[in-house]
Amino acid sequence: MRDVAIIGTGMTRFGELWDSSLRSMFADAALEALDDAKVDQLDAIYVGNMSGGCFVKQEHLGPLMAAEIGMSGVAATRVESACASGGAALRAAFFEVASGASDLVLASGVEKMNDGADVTDVLAMAADQEMEAYHGVTFPALYAMIANSHMAQFGTTVEDLAWVAVKNHKHGAMNPKAQFRREFTVEQVLNSSRVADPLGLLHCSPVSDGAAAVVLCPLERAREFTDKPIRILGTGMATASLMLADRENPAVLDAVRKAGEQAYAMAKCDPGKIQVAEVHDCFSIAEICCIEALGLVEPGRGGEAARSGFTALGGRIPVNTSGGLKSKGHPVGATGIAQAIEIAEQLRGESGDRQVPDAEIGLCQNMGGSGASAVVHILGRG
Amino acid sequence: MRDVAIIGTGMTRFGELWDSSLRSMFADAALEALDDAKVDQLDAIYVGNMSGGCFVKQEHLGPLMAAEIGMSGVAATRVESACASGGAALRAAFFEVASGASDLVLASGVEKMNDGADVTDVLAMAADQEMEAYHGVTFPALYAMIANSHMAQFGTTVEDLAWVAVKNHKHGAMNPKAQFRREFTVEQVLNSSRVADPLGLLHCSPVSDGAAAVVLCPLERAREFTDKPIRILGTGMATASLMLADRENPAVLDAVRKAGEQAYAMAKCDPGKIQVAEVHDCFSIAEICCIEALGLVEPGRGGEAARSGFTALGGRIPVNTSGGLKSKGHPVGATGIAQAIEIAEQLRGESGDRQVPDAEIGLCQNMGGSGASAVVHILGRG
Repeated sequence: MRDVAIIGTGMTRFGELWDSSLRSMFADAALEALDDAKVDQLDAIYVGNMSGGCFVKQEHLGPLMAAEIGMSGVAATRVESACASGGAALRAAFFEVASGASDLVLASGVEKMNDGADVTDVLAMAADQEMEAYHGVTFPALYAMIANSHMAQFGTTVEDLAWVAVKNHKHGAMNPKAQFRREFTVEQVLNSSRVADPLGLLHCSPVSDGAAAVVLCPLERAREFTDKPIRILGTGMATASLMLADRENPAVLDAVRKAGEQAYAMAKCDPGKIQVAEVHDCFSIAEICCIEALGLVEPGRGGEAARSGFTALGGRIPVNTSGGLKSKGHPVGATGIAQAIEIAEQLRGESGDRQVPDAEIGLCQNMGGSGASAVVHILGRG
Repeated sequence: MRDVAIIGTGMTRFGELWDSSLRSMFADAALEALDDAKVDQLDAIYVGNMSGGCFVKQEHLGPLMAAEIGMSGVAATRVESACASGGAALRAAFFEVASGASDLVLASGVEKMNDGADVTDVLAMAADQEMEAYHGVTFPALYAMIANSHMAQFGTTVEDLAWVAVKNHKHGAMNPKAQFRREFTVEQVLNSSRVADPLGLLHCSPVSDGAAAVVLCPLERAREFTDKPIRILGTGMATASLMLADRENPAVLDAVRKAGEQAYAMAKCDPGKIQVAEVHDCFSIAEICCIEALGLVEPGRGGEAARSGFTALGGRIPVNTSGGLKSKGHPVGATGIAQAIEIAEQLRGESGDRQVPDAEIGLCQNMGGSGASAVVHILGRG
């Protein structure tokens, strides 16, 4: 298998982008990535997207997006794994380059959520339609059940959850691409309107539009294009039951654990070597479960990590320096790619006020549904 | 890059399967493929599916389908390229095995179209929503424009088109998995109700439910599992403008030509070596354009191929011995995998009444939209 590197990155601001369409956002991110990589041709394009069909009545994004950046003809495929679609697209692109079949491959993600569709109804299609969504369960409700289970088993408090949001908004306030560039206090998070107990509005990631893209090439060719290639050291993917009720322990994300173990093994690395991480904080409780599943903290001890500063900028393992899904925004298909961009920029030393000093190795973890699919990538300086 | 083989195949009957759900059809096909390959574990699963979201309100098919066959935990990803989703899933699975990352990978496709959704509206999402579908263009209308253009440029007749349907129904009548196991005369096809002039009902593939799956492994391990491995000699994928009006010549399928050229080059093969082919006859005119784009006949001469018997069983290059999309049915996400199964069975010598004698090399070509994405695979005895 060939080693693979990221040689260019690009992304739109995340937010309510009423003046941008699905295709224009993709083009903005993709052209920025191509420009960053100083590349003007591609062998293939992967587009991570959860539900172009249900959000804006557009499937078949491969040829549409290839043409939108003047590359009609190039192989182009959409990859979907709900909110992990971006991570899954990065992984598919990785395999195409690693196999030796192609040299220059764009891995991208895009989602247009603010354009009229019933977002809660569409997102519920990432849950089990027959066993969950049909009966009225929504994602805030699913994660509320996870939160209640975590609190009951491990003594995690609502304040612990609130600290995740406080930390990520503090990070996101420094990110010019973030949807919400403002800080909140623990009190504000605790007092935000209830969505699904114990989760209030400020525990939940927002509805967002946005796109992100990275250019991959074989590591051996990376220095033709950049002085700062970022190597993909490991990739992992795993699944769990789509239905939360089918899992042995709702507060333990087995798919995340397995995907992490695969990625660590491939990267010949362990959690102790990770210096910066982006994890899937679609709800405050999700970050807590994810850092546990990834071994960044002990099982059941995720609750104290944000409060103690362990996962804050300046702490032992800064998590979600981008602001995370919570503050940066969560255009579902784009998120996994945006996470990889944050880590790549950290390793390049280009994160400005959010820079983790001397970061040489980082992790990004993207998941779909209530943790039914998970993709983990470990990146290092190339 | 490692050589890759198909070691097992499975598929449901195609048709109006009112008693089967999206997940049960997948399981029927996947378990048959695993049984055929004598395999009881997998490293990864790819699911080709055009629009689970719009057809049955279910996205995120990876974890759902992994659990449905008792393999929750295994990496599983949906791949979408409209009606070429199955071919795109096979290609993605090929790269994962070829890269060396995984040994046993299931490439599958599934679609549930007969369950209440407005099928024409959903299928139109494979066209350019803003530039085509929004203005009322449907797929029969797009292919009617292609047919009229082909007739005007090359003298192709409505009778030529009708012969494609007659031939494919004759083949499909011998296929126990086909949706319509009956023959039609040229007169019946010509007199079928107009859908979009010159295409009548019997020029159009039906709305179908169904699933198909193949198991891939490295060629070097294939004989652990089967005496008759089928080698994937070449893969190709290309795109063209999603919007038909943007193409230089609507009757020339450039994406199919490019994907074919890539696959021939990789397989070190040319059209003269192909002994049996499955091509994407979603409408009668599509088969004519596809065999031209693939070089199986001269440009502009596709019209006479079915009428003359060139592409019939017993002819020089039998095309769509399965019955094709026309007679076998077209559950859009499953079609590309079902094509590969037909060719694999031909090369194994297991096609019964439809057997092409001594077939050693075959081609399958799957496309999305009005030819905006195309995937070609060339298979040979392993």
